[in-house]
This record gives sequence, structure tokens and C-alpha cells, in this order.
Amino acid sequence: MKGQRKSHLKIIPLGGLEQIGMNMTAFEYRDTIIVVDCGLAFPEDDMLGIDMCIPDISYLVENKERVKGFFITHGHEDHIGAIPYVIKEINVPIYATRLTMGLIDHKLSEIGYLNRTHRKTVKYGQTINAGPFRVEFIKTNHSIQDSAALAIYTPVGVIMHTGDFKVDYTPVFGDAIDLQRFAEIGKKGVLGLMCDSTNAERQGFTESESTVGVKFNDIFAENKDSRIIIATFASNVDRVQQIINTAYKYGRKVVVEGRSMVTIISIAQKLGYISIPDNTLISTDQLKNYPDNRTVLITTGSQGESMAALSRMANGTHKKVAIKPGDTIIFSSHPIPGNEKDVSNIINELYRKGANVIFQDVHVSGHACQEEIKLIYSLVKPKYSIPVHGEYKHLKAQERIARSLGYDTEHIKILASGDILEFDEKGRANVTGHVRTGTVFVDGLGVGDVGSIVLRDRQHLAQDGIIIIVMAIEKSSGEIVSGPDIVSRGFVYVKESEDLMEQSRAIVANRLQEISDSRVRDWSKIKTEVKIALSDFIWKETQRNPMILPVIQEV
Amino acid sequence: MKGQRKSHLKIIPLGGLEQIGMNMTAFEYRDTIIVVDCGLAFPEDDMLGIDMCIPDISYLVENKERVKGFFITHGHEDHIGAIPYVIKEINVPIYATRLTMGLIDHKLSEIGYLNRTHRKTVKYGQTINAGPFRVEFIKTNHSIQDSAALAIYTPVGVIMHTGDFKVDYTPVFGDAIDLQRFAEIGKKGVLGLMCDSTNAERQGFTESESTVGVKFNDIFAENKDSRIIIATFASNVDRVQQIINTAYKYGRKVVVEGRSMVTIISIAQKLGYISIPDNTLISTDQLKNYPDNRTVLITTGSQGESMAALSRMANGTHKKVAIKPGDTIIFSSHPIPGNEKDVSNIINELYRKGANVIFQDVHVSGHACQEEIKLIYSLVKPKYSIPVHGEYKHLKAQERIARSLGYDTEHIKILASGDILEFDEKGRANVTGHVRTGTVFVDGLGVGDVGSIVLRDRQHLAQDGIIIIVMAIEKSSGEIVSGPDIVSRGFVYVKESEDLMEQSRAIVANRLQEISDSRVRDWSKIKTEVKIALSDFIWKETQRNPMILPVIQEV
Repeated sequence: MKGQRKSHLKIIPLGGLEQIGMNMTAFEYRDTIIVVDCGLAFPEDDMLGIDMCIPDISYLVENKERVKGFFITHGHEDHIGAIPYVIKEINVPIYATRLTMGLIDHKLSEIGYLNRTHRKTVKYGQTINAGPFRVEFIKTNHSIQDSAALAIYTPVGVIMHTGDFKVDYTPVFGDAIDLQRFAEIGKKGVLGLMCDSTNAERQGFTESESTVGVKFNDIFAENKDSRIIIATFASNVDRVQQIINTAYKYGRKVVVEGRSMVTIISIAQKLGYISIPDNTLISTDQLKNYPDNRTVLITTGSQGESMAALSRMANGTHKKVAIKPGDTIIFSSHPIPGNEKDVSNIINELYRKGANVIFQDVHVSGHACQEEIKLIYSLVKPKYSIPVHGEYKHLKAQERIARSLGYDTEHIKILASGDILEFDEKGRANVTGHVRTGTVFVDGLGVGDVGSIVLRDRQHLAQDGIIIIVMAIEKSSGEIVSGPDIVSRGFVYVKESEDLMEQSRAIVANRLQEISDSRVRDWSKIKTEVKIALSDFIWKETQRNPMILPVIQEV
Repeated sequence: MKGQRKSHLKIIPLGGLEQIGMNMTAFEYRDTIIVVDCGLAFPEDDMLGIDMCIPDISYLVENKERVKGFFITHGHEDHIGAIPYVIKEINVPIYATRLTMGLIDHKLSEIGYLNRTHRKTVKYGQTINAGPFRVEFIKTNHSIQDSAALAIYTPVGVIMHTGDFKVDYTPVFGDAIDLQRFAEIGKKGVLGLMCDSTNAERQGFTESESTVGVKFNDIFAENKDSRIIIATFASNVDRVQQIINTAYKYGRKVVVEGRSMVTIISIAQKLGYISIPDNTLISTDQLKNYPDNRTVLITTGSQGESMAALSRMANGTHKKVAIKPGDTIIFSSHPIPGNEKDVSNIINELYRKGANVIFQDVHVSGHACQEEIKLIYSLVKPKYSIPVHGEYKHLKAQERIARSLGYDTEHIKILASGDILEFDEKGRANVTGHVRTGTVFVDGLGVGDVGSIVLRDRQHLAQDGIIIIVMAIEKSSGEIVSGPDIVSRGFVYVKESEDLMEQSRAIVANRLQEISDSRVRDWSKIKTEVKIALSDFIWKETQRNPMILPVIQEV
């Protein structure tokens, strides 16, 4: 049995397949494991205080000696963001295209791992061998340059992983997606297609990145008298290129604002992925030397992030730039689900400052819509459809597309995180087991020290605050020698609720007296009784449920 | 000066004009104040633990004897929700149309004020006198029946307040908006138009409510074999009517689920605003007596609210209904800004349970788009445009519409909450002052006892939790006789961070020793010093900033 199993291919999603982010998939054959992508996820609203989420890689750590490399499809955080954490545990070679590697290098150098990690920059069409696997990088288009699909050649067949992609026949930089190569590999036979599902609910085709350039041209032409500030995604270098081209055409100087924007542009510029005419870029300090209608600011903050440059400009907390009446602000972006309200709030704030705000239709998506997905299926003609990348509803939407192309239930595999999808020698696929996966929270410098209990406490504290009951008890006699005192935070404004706090103290004191009369000496029992008494009283009086924490000092 | 002012009309928005919700506007002339609407707002994400927001009505309370009545445009929570709180302070007559009054009555009876409040149900076309004011109720269309615009006749001119409205030429129940009356009043001359801005960013016309019925028919025809569950807004009685009509046509029994849905349907049924064929409605308990494809559930929870019926069905916490594979779930709604992620999460959960989910295009808005707004302006031809109802960006969008119709800056008045817009005898308008307004938080039974300090504490607690330092000090000697002990909640999982907690204790103990050596005896200073020392240490070690609370017991 075990012998047979050895010639099987296993595909195991280790990140949160069902959530945007934490993209990470293991491919396993005999003694070799290769991993595609290594991403982080940003926290959900109820993950209070959490900075980011990375995948639980226990499975990889347990099989460390078998892991032969990370193959990265492109340089977005949900595909490379966990590398600094993971590489400390599993330091194996990283394979990626040039710009992607530039962004990874930046991360590695920040943690001092640049010279301690083997990295290999791969060209499109190039193939990497890793034990029984061969991995070919294929040109695609996406909202970041140098994105790749991976053709993973295995002893039981070829798996095609699209990465995040769209079909752009007229890209701003570089070539269109290599549809011929998709067709060529498809013609020879593909076992499974792991295809991006993000836009699988949307009909038609995603528009070309170059259409946004046309919009910029129109907006610049219509707003010749005002300063122009454009918020967009830091990693969309082609978007920035188009802004710079338009600025140059209209004789405007360009300022780049926001830390991540500056970082990525400088990496892209160094590697030749963006070309900036001489004397076009100026520093924020030089801004005052030019009239407003001769300048453009490109900035982070298009998602309404409170710490990003645009928010700070709008709120008047930016050190060097403040929004002025007459400014034209362009959101060249679309709110990521969950950010709608934050974006709306900042738009309102910009209007209040007297700015003119343009936030509709100055953006195109980086992901394939339904017709593009169908195109890829028709070129690759895989035996199995394995929808990836997206919320569960997006995976289901790709399932519907696959059905419309004739795939039956048997040949569509929607996986959960940790599922082992096993292909036997004859290329028959089934989910045969499950490995441990999960989400590790990163909070400040701490990785994994905040778990669900701590989060539940934070949620509890956030709802109704905390009431602390303090008392000192004399060791020998068990008598209360100080307190009970009551301290609260985040519960009510104490000065306006003196009665309530005084009554609370009385309730606790009474209960303590009763307990003392009944000669209970078990402290944890005393704490529980006091807690219940106060909790009942507070609920009855206020219908609130603050955390109640009795602390007993022994003197 | 003061004498002159007395013949001026003042319009004062008292609610959050810039936020959705808390709609409330005072109209003031000499000794009389009348108030239009009395709404609540639902809390923003950062208002932790808050149940709802109501307007600060200090201004009305201070001028209590002058307030002559509340005139309510329609029965949505953002227009009637604050009545139970406000009426306890200012018990004056309430004027509203029949269904609106039915919903208000329900609220008043819950707080025992039904017989203590003077209420007058008004018919369309009817006029109410209140001192120098006359208020006429005019038929409009909206996503709740019996909505009204108000023509407010004052000594200096007519103010037309649209309430929330759309133009529906083919409404499901009752008449279309009374455009003739708008025109007639407009022809005689209108001083100011206060017009709904919610959809002012959207081009074209809002579709008729009756178009949704056609969609239901299609969906029922295509899903003859499955149970159908439809989530929609509890207050949209016409929507429910159309679902019931379609269910009846297809021979299905109807169950109504969710407390607010049951309440509103029963009020609407009692007042004759919904007609349900005999033997169509069944109870949830009877559901088991019918095959799935003979039933329809109408439920709350279309906004992904975690406590609503649909969420509980999806999560398996509903006592009587669980989602099954094959169920067809329809979202006849659109996510309210800020709820997108919650809605998305529940859709994912429904798909996971094997349901088929339909969530696009089974809804129309209740608010007027750009062409409808232009229509109202063209009928009313006001001297002044006063955009109301919407976020600031929506007010600005209506301003752009007004500009396109020829209004200049002078004649468009975007007000902030508390602004006094004063019209002199000649009907010239200017903002001449400002009254106190604000938001009062309701948390459980408490109204106003949670303010910004408490909220800031909750936000702080939510981010990184709390560390409590407890020690007992001997009164006479000032010596520490117990502790320092350290207790934390929501900070880190203590068992995995024993070192950190032990080091924290040592840091505090050291600092206390130093303080003791320097003979400081001021407790608040001791507390501050200890807090700073621990805070610095924790930040250095973890880059986190928990709330630190030193508690000293004197024994």
C-alpha cells in the first residue's frame, strides 16, 4: 500500500484557499515537495490588533528535508508576504522572475537573509528541475509585471497553475500572455488546471491596462489648472508608468509619496521595469518650487488605509502635503472587499477639504473574467479543473464555468485548505486525506503568540471594557484588609456613573461577606462567586457584559 | 437687531447630515420650532460595543417649550429610530402617515408611551398647522410604503423636503409619486428644496419596484425543485408582497422568519398594506409538513448581520431551520456600505452548505438617481438648493446636479450638522450660526454614558489587551507587602510567554525598588513610573502597546 502510494502525486493547499491571501500550495511526489507561492493575508475585522496572517507551515516543517524549493508566481503580498517568516524555518531555494525576485530580495535583506538564501531568477520559457518535478515559467499578464503561470511537469502528468492572471493583448510593458505556449502544452495533454477564480463571477473580458492611460489623458486635459493627486496600488508599476507618461506629456513634475510606493518604484526603476524621463521626478520638498498645475503626486492610500499618505494628506497629519481646495484627486483603484467604508470616508474628507474627487472608472482589474477563464480552459483542455484563488463563492463560480464547458462533478475539485488531492499513476484524482493547516497571527514582533483565546479576550474587552475587582486578604486570618476596590476601563465614564460603581462595590462587598460567613477559603471559588454576583448586577442594570477580573492580593 | 431676527426662518440640521442616519431637522420661526424626522444611526466599525447612535438634542431640550411637533417622512429607522429616546425628553405631537405611524406606535408601546404621546395620522394632501407653519404631506415612492415629502409653508416662503424618495410610475402598492402636486407648489414659488442625495452619484433612473417581481417569477420558474429562501429588508413590504404573490402563483407556502420581519409584516397586514391569500402563511414549525419545493422562507439577514435569521440558518445555530444542499437562497438586497464583507462571508458559508446563491440584480434601490433628482428640481424650481440625506460626497454630487441646472454657489447650501441656515424676510439665505449637535451612543440600557474616552479605552483594549500590575503597600512604612503581580488579558497567551511575563514582573519590581530608594511616596507618581518602565520594556520586546494599569492596595 505504502509502496503504491509512493508513485502518486499529491497537491496540498497549505494557505487559506478559501480566503484571499496566504497563497501556498505543496506539490509532492515520493521524496520531493515543491511549494508554489508563500503569501500573507491581511486580518479580518474581528482579528483585533493583528497586523497580518501567515500560514501554519507545520506540515512543511515536519517534512523539511523533502522540501526542495519555493516557486513564486508574482510579487504581490498574498504570494510573497510570508517569505520572511517561512524562510527562517525552511531555508530552501526560491525561484521567481526578475521583478518578483527584486521584491523578494528587498524582503530578505530587511531580515538579513539575502546572502543566506539561495535565489534563482528565472526567465519565461525556462524550466527548473526539482527531483521528479520540472517547473516551467510562462508569461502572463496581471496588475504587477513579471507574473508567471507555472507548468508543473510530474511523472503522472502536467499540472498548469495560472497564478493570478488576465489576458491583456495590449499590455503597457512587455508581452501579452503567452497563449501559444498554453495551447502547446494543452495539446500535449494536461492533467489538472489550477486557475485564478477572483473574477469568475464577472461576465466578459477584463479591459487592458492601457485603457487606463487613455482615461488619465482625458482627466489631465480636463484639469489643466489644478494640482493632480493620484492614489493607486504601490505594486502596479504599469499604472505608475502611465501616470508618469501623462504627466510628462502635460509638462508636470511627479512626486512619489508613501513608503511602499517609493520602495517598489525604486526597485522597478533599478531593474528597468519603469522608465522615467530625466527631470520628471522631484522630491516632496521641491514641490513648493512649482505651481500646482505643474505637479502630480502619485500616492499610496487608495484603500483608505488610515496610516497611508493620502489619509494623512486629507487629515492634515502629513508633514509635507496638505489637500487644498481645487486639488483634483483620482482614485485609480477599486476598493478591496471590506475596505469600501474606509474609502468612502476618505472621499468624504477630501470633498470637505474642497478637492474634486474622481473615483469611478479609472481602474481595470488584474484578474481574468469569465471569457478569459473559458479561453484558458479551451487552450489547456485539462482533465481536471481545480479552481484556486478567491473566496469560496469565486471557486464555485469557476465551477459553474467549468460545468458550462462540459466538466462533470467528478472532474472538478474544489479543495479546502489542507486537503490532499492525490493523483494515482493513471492520473485519477481524489481527496485522500488532510494535513494540519491554519492561520498564524503576527502582532508586532510576535508570531503565533496571539491565538484564539487572546483574540476572544480582545473581542470581549472591545465590546464592553473591563471591571477589575481588587482586594487584599490577610494570609493567616483570611480577612479582607483592603478593598474590595473597583477599577474599570472602557466600561462607562466613571464620573457620570458614580452610583453604579458604588453599588457595584457594595454588591461585591456583600457577596464577600456572605462567602466569608460560610467559611469558604478556596480563592478561585471566591473569585468565581464575586464575578458571578457582579456580572449579574451589571447585566441587570445596564444590559452590558464587561469582562470582570477579580484580583486577590495575599498580605 | 433681535427684533428683526424674529421674522426670520431658520433651518437647523440636528442629526448627522453628513452621515447616513440620525435624520432630524429643526425649522424655527419666532416662538415655534417644528422638527422633521427623528432617526438613529447604526455604529461605525470603530464605535466598539455601541448598539446605536442617536442625535444630541440639547438644543431642542433647551428650547423645549417652543417645540410644537415632530413631522415624520417615513418609517425607516434612520427617520424614526430615535423617537423612543427623544420623546422621553420632549413629549410633543407626532405627525405621520398611516403605516409610518403604525411603526412608531409599535416603538412607543414598547416603552409604555403609546397613551402618553399625542399622535396624529395624516393623509396625503392634508395640512397640519403648527404656529406660523403649515405642513402638507405629499405622496412619494420609496422602499417603504406611505413615504411622504413635506411642503413646509412658512411666512418667508415654502420649503419642500422630499424625504427619501424615488419616482416609481408603476408601484406595487398605492399610487405613483404625486408629481402634479410638486409642480403645482413649484409653480407658486418655492424658496428651498431639501432633496434626497443618496443616489446622486448614479446616472439615469432607479427602476420600478415592480421589476423585481418579474425577476422573482423567473427565479421561481427556474428553481421548481428546491426550497427557496429569500433575504430582504424587513421594512420593504412591497418586496414581501411580491414574494408572496409569486409563491402563491407557484403553489408554495410562505414562512416569515426574523423578529423585525415578523413585526413589520404583522403591522402592515393589520393596516392593510399587504394582502396575503388564505392558507399561504405557515409557521416555521409547520415547515416539516410540506415538501421543500412547496415552501418559501422570507427572512432577515440580507446584510450579513451575525444575529439575524439567515446567518443563524447558515451557521447551524437557528433552532428550526438549517440550510441544506440544493436550497436556493436569494439576496433581494444590496449591501449597505460597510456591510460588503459580512454579506460576502455569509454567501461563502451558504455555498459551503451546498446551497445555490443568487445575489445579483434581484433588488432595486429606493432612492432617486440623477434624472429623477433633475425632474424634481424642474417641477419645484426652488430658489435655493439644500441637498440632504447622504454622505458628504452624495451632497456634493447633488450640488453638481444643481450646478448643471444653472444654480450658482450662492444658491446651493450644503449644511453641516448644527448649522443655522437663516432666511430673512426677503428670502435671502445665509448660514448665520451654529448650535450644539453631536452623537449620543446607546450601549445596552445606557444612553450617553459611553463617550469618547470610554471608546478610546475600548479601542486601546481591542488592539493589544491589558496588563494589570497589582501590589499591596503597607500604609505606615510604604513597603511593598505583596506583589507586584502581573495579570494580563488579550495581550499574549501567557503559557507560551512565561518568560516575558516573568521579565515584566522583574522590570516592575526593579523600578519599584529604585523609586523606593529615592523615597518617592506619591502614589500617582509611582504608578506613572511603573507604567512607563513596563510600557517601554513591552514595546521593545514585542512592538505592542497594551493598556497598562497599575493598581496599588493600601493595607
